Amino acid sequence: MPNDQASPFPNSTKVHLEGPRGIRVPMRQIALSGGEPPLRVYDTSGPALTDVREGLPPLRLPWILERTVYEAPERDQTLGLPMPRGLRRKVLRGAGPVTQLHYARRGDITPEMDFVALREGVPAELVRSEVARGRAIIPANINHPELEPMAIGRAFLVKINANIGNSAVKSSIEDEVEKLRWATLWGADTVMDLSTGRDIHETRQWIIRNSAVPIGTVPIYQALEKVGGVAEDLTWEIYRDTLIEQAEQGVDYFTVHAGVLLRYVPLTANRVTGIVSRGGSILAKWCLSHHKENFLYTHFREICEIMAAYDVSFSLGDGLRPGSIADANDEAQFAELKTQGELNRIAWEHGVQVMNEGPGHIPMHLIKENMDKQLEWCGEAPFYTLGPLTTDIAPGYDHITSAIGAAMIGWFGTAMLCYVTPKEHLGLPDKDDVKAGVIAYRIAAHAADLAKGHPRAREWDDALSRARFDFRWEDQFNLALDPVTARAFHDETLPADGAKVAHFCSMCGPKFCSMKITQDVRDYAAELEKKAEEFRESGGEIYVKQG
Amino acid sequence: MPNDQASPFPNSTKVHLEGPRGIRVPMRQIALSGGEPPLRVYDTSGPALTDVREGLPPLRLPWILERTVYEAPERDQTLGLPMPRGLRRKVLRGAGPVTQLHYARRGDITPEMDFVALREGVPAELVRSEVARGRAIIPANINHPELEPMAIGRAFLVKINANIGNSAVKSSIEDEVEKLRWATLWGADTVMDLSTGRDIHETRQWIIRNSAVPIGTVPIYQALEKVGGVAEDLTWEIYRDTLIEQAEQGVDYFTVHAGVLLRYVPLTANRVTGIVSRGGSILAKWCLSHHKENFLYTHFREICEIMAAYDVSFSLGDGLRPGSIADANDEAQFAELKTQGELNRIAWEHGVQVMNEGPGHIPMHLIKENMDKQLEWCGEAPFYTLGPLTTDIAPGYDHITSAIGAAMIGWFGTAMLCYVTPKEHLGLPDKDDVKAGVIAYRIAAHAADLAKGHPRAREWDDALSRARFDFRWEDQFNLALDPVTARAFHDETLPADGAKVAHFCSMCGPKFCSMKITQDVRDYAAELEKKAEEFRESGGEIYVKQG
Repeated sequence: MPNDQASPFPNSTKVHLEGPRGIRVPMRQIALSGGEPPLRVYDTSGPALTDVREGLPPLRLPWILERTVYEAPERDQTLGLPMPRGLRRKVLRGAGPVTQLHYARRGDITPEMDFVALREGVPAELVRSEVARGRAIIPANINHPELEPMAIGRAFLVKINANIGNSAVKSSIEDEVEKLRWATLWGADTVMDLSTGRDIHETRQWIIRNSAVPIGTVPIYQALEKVGGVAEDLTWEIYRDTLIEQAEQGVDYFTVHAGVLLRYVPLTANRVTGIVSRGGSILAKWCLSHHKENFLYTHFREICEIMAAYDVSFSLGDGLRPGSIADANDEAQFAELKTQGELNRIAWEHGVQVMNEGPGHIPMHLIKENMDKQLEWCGEAPFYTLGPLTTDIAPGYDHITSAIGAAMIGWFGTAMLCYVTPKEHLGLPDKDDVKAGVIAYRIAAHAADLAKGHPRAREWDDALSRARFDFRWEDQFNLALDPVTARAFHDETLPADGAKVAHFCSMCGPKFCSMKITQDVRDYAAELEKKAEEFRESGGEIYVKQG
Repeated sequence: MPNDQASPFPNSTKVHLEGPRGIRVPMRQIALSGGEPPLRVYDTSGPALTDVREGLPPLRLPWILERTVYEAPERDQTLGLPMPRGLRRKVLRGAGPVTQLHYARRGDITPEMDFVALREGVPAELVRSEVARGRAIIPANINHPELEPMAIGRAFLVKINANIGNSAVKSSIEDEVEKLRWATLWGADTVMDLSTGRDIHETRQWIIRNSAVPIGTVPIYQALEKVGGVAEDLTWEIYRDTLIEQAEQGVDYFTVHAGVLLRYVPLTANRVTGIVSRGGSILAKWCLSHHKENFLYTHFREICEIMAAYDVSFSLGDGLRPGSIADANDEAQFAELKTQGELNRIAWEHGVQVMNEGPGHIPMHLIKENMDKQLEWCGEAPFYTLGPLTTDIAPGYDHITSAIGAAMIGWFGTAMLCYVTPKEHLGLPDKDDVKAGVIAYRIAAHAADLAKGHPRAREWDDALSRARFDFRWEDQFNLALDPVTARAFHDETLPADGAKVAHFCSMCGPKFCSMKITQDVRDYAAELEKKAEEFRESGGEIYVKQG
């Protein structure tokens, strides 16, 4: 696949929907032929990037500065690499809660809510009320002014997250920024930076400054780096400082494994695959080593206070999620989910936005129970699941094993689906893997939107189906989630340009095409109808003599 | 991917389960390390091929010759290419019905049923009773002695079909035989030969003689060739002769679009994508041109008589299946399904085995209705669906859009899933596409088996999960549906041989591995348990003073 950020969507242009207060919401407009109106689709690709060392324009800054915020003292967290001047920003902190939840409850429609409403094609008041009820979140740290706001919630389009992140084994900062741009080009709605190697702080700064989508992290990873990788040496103070450091950088949501309670850890001892969440296993080890309750749980209210001051959203981690079909829906998993629900209520008390992370590896017949329990126990907070993978036997294809589960749980009500790449369980995803994961999850999310009956979902399918039936090959390619691949596959069999306007395709050949025959059938049916009408118009009436 | 028929499963050997009457059922046995017992999995790859011009050994011939059959006069249908002598067979015909259904109803357990029972790990009597009730079929033409019998039915493992077939545009006979071997190597349970170009007869002969899996065809394709591609010129006599020709060659099941009734055709006129089934559109055109009822419907009992004499099974085609999300579950589709049910009963009257073909393009929330109606209207005959695709927006990835629907409908009770390759709608599948389609559908079928609670399904997932948790990398690769790809993906990141025994993986690196930490947790939990036990053994009793 070409490594070009602009060309994959040849007949598309970025347009903007104009909203109140000068809001301009980007959409991708696909021009069509045959008298068809252009189709506008949701666009996550962000503004054209001019210089990665300068970052994106701070779209939200005027909105944020209208809130009660003050400048925090600048702290240089750079440990090794020098930070380009263009990527430095003044650090803001709220004097009290500055969260979208806080404003929504007051009845305020923020510019972020207006932006989301236009983007989703729904009334702004719906966005506000969903946020106010805790059924949706708008992850939008006041230190991430480059963000194009988006909502995660059941009433909206199903979203997908792509994970990136360097690791101890390989990859560089530039690789990670490139992966971010690449993932959002293909449709990632949020990106999690799961870096665990050196230069975590610098990598994150580059990513956030160049990201138009919310960035999530798992702060315990960096905290662990700070104590040399020894879980037992973690302390609340080190973790707290890490939270503040990342909140000041502009991370939009934190995965916090506060539901991994000491008493739940032994519930995993007889599992086939134990604890597979990195965060979960770190906390479990800490709990057992000290024989103390998880410090994220015992300090949860202090965490809430920090997050409220920057509007960082919770993504409450599922540290005890099953890592195999054998361990699905077990006692450990559901014990933690119940605790997530308890923590949701505390987050809401503090005005902090929250969603819940979910599994993992779940066979199809056990998927719905996950959604049902999450809705019941977690007060309808948005659910954010990893897959789930519906079988364990296909390493190398887990984007597919999990897209099946993701589509289903999205239909059942999950608000965001964390992608899985073909390299899952095997290695680090490269750009092709990131793309494969994003496309598989765009499919799952869209299939879920269709099944949920989202009013905007069907128009895309119908536009493509009409193009297919009319043999408008170029339109069919341009409407595809991945026009590059669709075109390349067609050209492999019928490379001539003439074939792209041909009224047949490679499956059947010119003499034997079902769609061609159907058009004949339709013509014939129309002719029959016309004859019947002429007969009626001429006064003919079959039953006239019976009168 | 290497084009090697033997190497993709490095630690596997073919073993045979010994059954009554000298029956030997092939299984693939995967040797494992770490004291794990080997895992045996269902094997569709057939006997090792020695010479494609000689075909496979006629395993079933002695069983068939015990039935009341006579030799039909040999007819040379070869139009152009000479047929290798080794691929010629005597043609058999039953003196009366020789179908598995016929024997099952009589209470006979045929060798085919014994074979299936061993293969599925179920009692032979269950196989017989499912076949007798019409809930399962064993497609097994008496002229296909090379077949390793298999069952298609809800009580058994979910099966998958791969389509191959040359076309007017490109491909050769050798290509098609190679595709057959390739598809069954990766797990196709049956193969449909959808050839539409020249040399249809010869291609089919080569395929059947070299196939250990049932071969299906759509005879109307060849009939249409015989009338120069002009649908209006089709006649019952030409079609009937084609059925006999193919039955004598050994085709195991025929797709017959007998449910496309004249009165249903206008129901498709206002569809977004009209009639997309090739067979359906040919018949629709014929019906409208002559303004007569579909000759497959009016001659259905004669068709049954032909098929009973060779034990060819019906795959009643869904010629009016939807070709887009927009057309799903519409009046035309369900009208035809109801007629399929009517035809099932006629087939059963004649002792002919029958399954029903189903859609197509269906959004997730409408999938279950298809299964429910098929069960109700079609008397629980096996359902055999194409996908269904759950969205139309991803040409180039329709193996994924459809694997989602296929897994779901398989769980709901569909007995066989017709694969879709990444080239669907765009071009002709090459070997990579065939493999991608088969793997995606093996995933869907296995996910469905898990969800249905098939007793044998879970052991494969559990074996792989244990290998994963124990860092037995080689076992994990060897247990994968596609060991080649799993290994290659791992080696991209960590190519050193040492990494395959390392107790960490590339996602987290050596210091920071959740599975490693979990093992520590488990050791710790065991230690706690041991201490508690020592305490109890030493007579310690916490509440002793309360007594």
